[in-house]
This record gives sequence, structure tokens and C-alpha cells, in this order.
Amino acid sequence: MAVVTADIGPGVRGGPVSLDGYAAGPNQSEDLPFGEGVDGRLHTWMFDHADENRAEVDRIVNAGASIMGRNIFGPDRGDWDLDGKGWWGPEPPYHAPVFVLTHHHREPLEMDGGTTFRFVTDGPESALAQAERAAGDGRLAIAGGAATLNQYLSRGAIDELRLHVVPITLGACERVFDGVDGLTFGIDRIRPTGQVVHMTLRLPAR
Amino acid sequence: MAVVTADIGPGVRGGPVSLDGYAAGPNQSEDLPFGEGVDGRLHTWMFDHADENRAEVDRIVNAGASIMGRNIFGPDRGDWDLDGKGWWGPEPPYHAPVFVLTHHHREPLEMDGGTTFRFVTDGPESALAQAERAAGDGRLAIAGGAATLNQYLSRGAIDELRLHVVPITLGACERVFDGVDGLTFGIDRIRPTGQVVHMTLRLPAR
Repeated sequence: MAVVTADIGPGVRGGPVSLDGYAAGPNQSEDLPFGEGVDGRLHTWMFDHADENRAEVDRIVNAGASIMGRNIFGPDRGDWDLDGKGWWGPEPPYHAPVFVLTHHHREPLEMDGGTTFRFVTDGPESALAQAERAAGDGRLAIAGGAATLNQYLSRGAIDELRLHVVPITLGACERVFDGVDGLTFGIDRIRPTGQVVHMTLRLPAR
Repeated sequence: MAVVTADIGPGVRGGPVSLDGYAAGPNQSEDLPFGEGVDGRLHTWMFDHADENRAEVDRIVNAGASIMGRNIFGPDRGDWDLDGKGWWGPEPPYHAPVFVLTHHHREPLEMDGGTTFRFVTDGPESALAQAERAAGDGRLAIAGGAATLNQYLSRGAIDELRLHVVPITLGACERVFDGVDGLTFGIDRIRPTGQVVHMTLRLPAR
């Protein structure tokens, strides 16, 4: 079975979380993909200090398949605007199938570089089964956001959780671990850099 | 001015916090000082693995003065039962003045080993001023719980925050950083052990 990992939060190739557990500010929009009040501060480590954080940035990519919530795919809400191709530009960084959780049907969207977005309307279990088949022996990545991560954490579907903790407090919006109590992780690898504390945590084998 | 530090949560000599930011389970009582559902798991690193975590355990003690919420002093609620001397036994580990925030007047309580509990009824600013005077050039420690820490964080009164993050989720009770958004910390020292991730964070100078 594919090893399921999660790098949570929005952001290019996975993402960070604030010290108080938020993965984005409120009111995400096309102009503010990370929400209000964040001002890029959750992502400085990826964008402005990529060399110092290279090991973690590189580990986020190269999954055999990914699952994400609709808000991580793009700014679109409700019925699809079929001209909209999401946040990720013509060549998204996934280079593999990406399963997008949504309540609204949409045909698969093939992008440059091997990324195909597949829109799953029959729930997270179905998305997990489809993504595990697609990943094969590779890694299956839960690409966020917090609500999607929490859903899979509460199902016991995640083997390894990578939290990239940025030492700021945000105080609003989707929170990691909301409604997911009773978990016990093992501490695998902790690496602080100047901007972020990278925490790799293990969950018991399924 | 005294350097103000905080090791948050209940527990002997300061304490830990869960991965989702809780410093205790709900319904603390004399029988369950850390609340329901915790079962000592937040404190294993202190009690069962003290050697491995010696540096951090030792850094928690030796403050010139401390401030704590009433629930950290003892199980008593409402009007004082003057026979009750708190959680800490006849010789508490503080060996210095401890200022306890409460709405109910009580005379100072002198314990063995140099600890005196002083009960402050005129608010957190007054407690801070009194404790800073008592600490002199020494360190002033905010000894928790989460609500007390949050109160002083929101006043900008804390110089250094030490989070002892235990990789479990609890999902209830007092949460660190609740109502305290907009903070930006510096990453000072991060040390994982087998049971806990010790994080020392700096706040801007007052």
C-alpha cells in the first residue's frame, strides 16, 4: 500500500502552518490565495529562503499521487468556471495525478508536465482509494488544506505528518487538528531553520 | 527589568502543551490535576524521562519570582478552603515568591524551602509589577496555565516563550494562543527528545 504523507496548508508544493495551527488566513481569494492578514509570512521560508529549507521543499514534491481540497486547487467556489485552471499555472509542480475533493462534477483537467487534476465528488474514501491505486508503490501526499488533512487524520489514513511550523500566530480560519483528538504521534525528525521548524511525525502503522 | 519567560501548562515546575495547543484536559480536579483524558501523557518526559530532558527541566526552575493562574496553584475554586495548600506539597519547587491570580482574597502562604504564595486580587498588571519587583535582576517566570499565558502574551509582557510540545492531540480545554493573534516570534532553540519537542521562542524586546 502507498505510504500516505501530508504536508499541510496551502502554498506551492505543500505548505506551512502557524504556531497556533492555522494553515491560512480567512477569506482566501484569487488576489489573496493565502487569505487575509498573512501577507506571505507563512511562505517566506519557501520563497525567500529556499536554499536553507531545500531538504524539506524537495521532500514535498515527487509524490506518486496527491489529494487536495478544492480551495487548494483554486479560487473558484460553487459551480465551476471551466476557464479557471486553478492556482498552479500551466505546469503545476505535481507532475502526477492530483485528486481534488469537490461537490461539483468536472471533467479531468490535463496540464503540462504530467499533472492531471481529477475531480472527485463521491467523498474522501473514494478519493483515497483512487489515489492509492494511482500512486502504486509510490507515495500518496495529502496536499491540504487543514480541513482535508483533519478528515484523513480522523480516518487514520495518514502514516507521516510533516508540519512546517512558522512562529507567528494568526488566530483565524481553518485549523489543523480541529475535531481530531486522541492522536499519538512519534517524533521522527525535527529541523529548525531561521524561519520555520520542520517537524516530521509518525502515526502508527495502519 | 526582569526577563520574563513562560514555560506553559500545568505540571511540576512548568509544563507541556499538546500538538494542538492544549495545556490540560477538561475538568481538572484534585484527583485529576491535569484534567480528563490526559493520563499523564503530557508529563511523561518530565517524570519518566527526566535525564533525557534534564536541560529543559532545569531551566524551568530557579526563577526569581513566578506568576500563575489559580488553577495552577491548586484544585480549590471559589471561596478559599484555608486548609488547602495547593497542588505542590509542603515544599514547592519554586523556592521564591509566587504570585497567584485570583478573585478571592487570601493572606500570603509561606511554605517550606522559601516558597511564598501571594494572592493577587487586583489584576494581572498588578501581579506583573509586584513580581518584577520581587524578581529584581532575576528571571520572572509565567508558570501557566494557558489562559494566564495568553493574557500576558497579549500585553506584550513576555520575552521568551518555551513550548514543550508533546506529539498528541487533546481537542479540549484551555488553549495556548487563543485570542492572541498577530504575534511574530524568533526561533531561538529547538531540541527534540524521544517524548517532546522543546521550542524556545523569542519575542521582540519591550
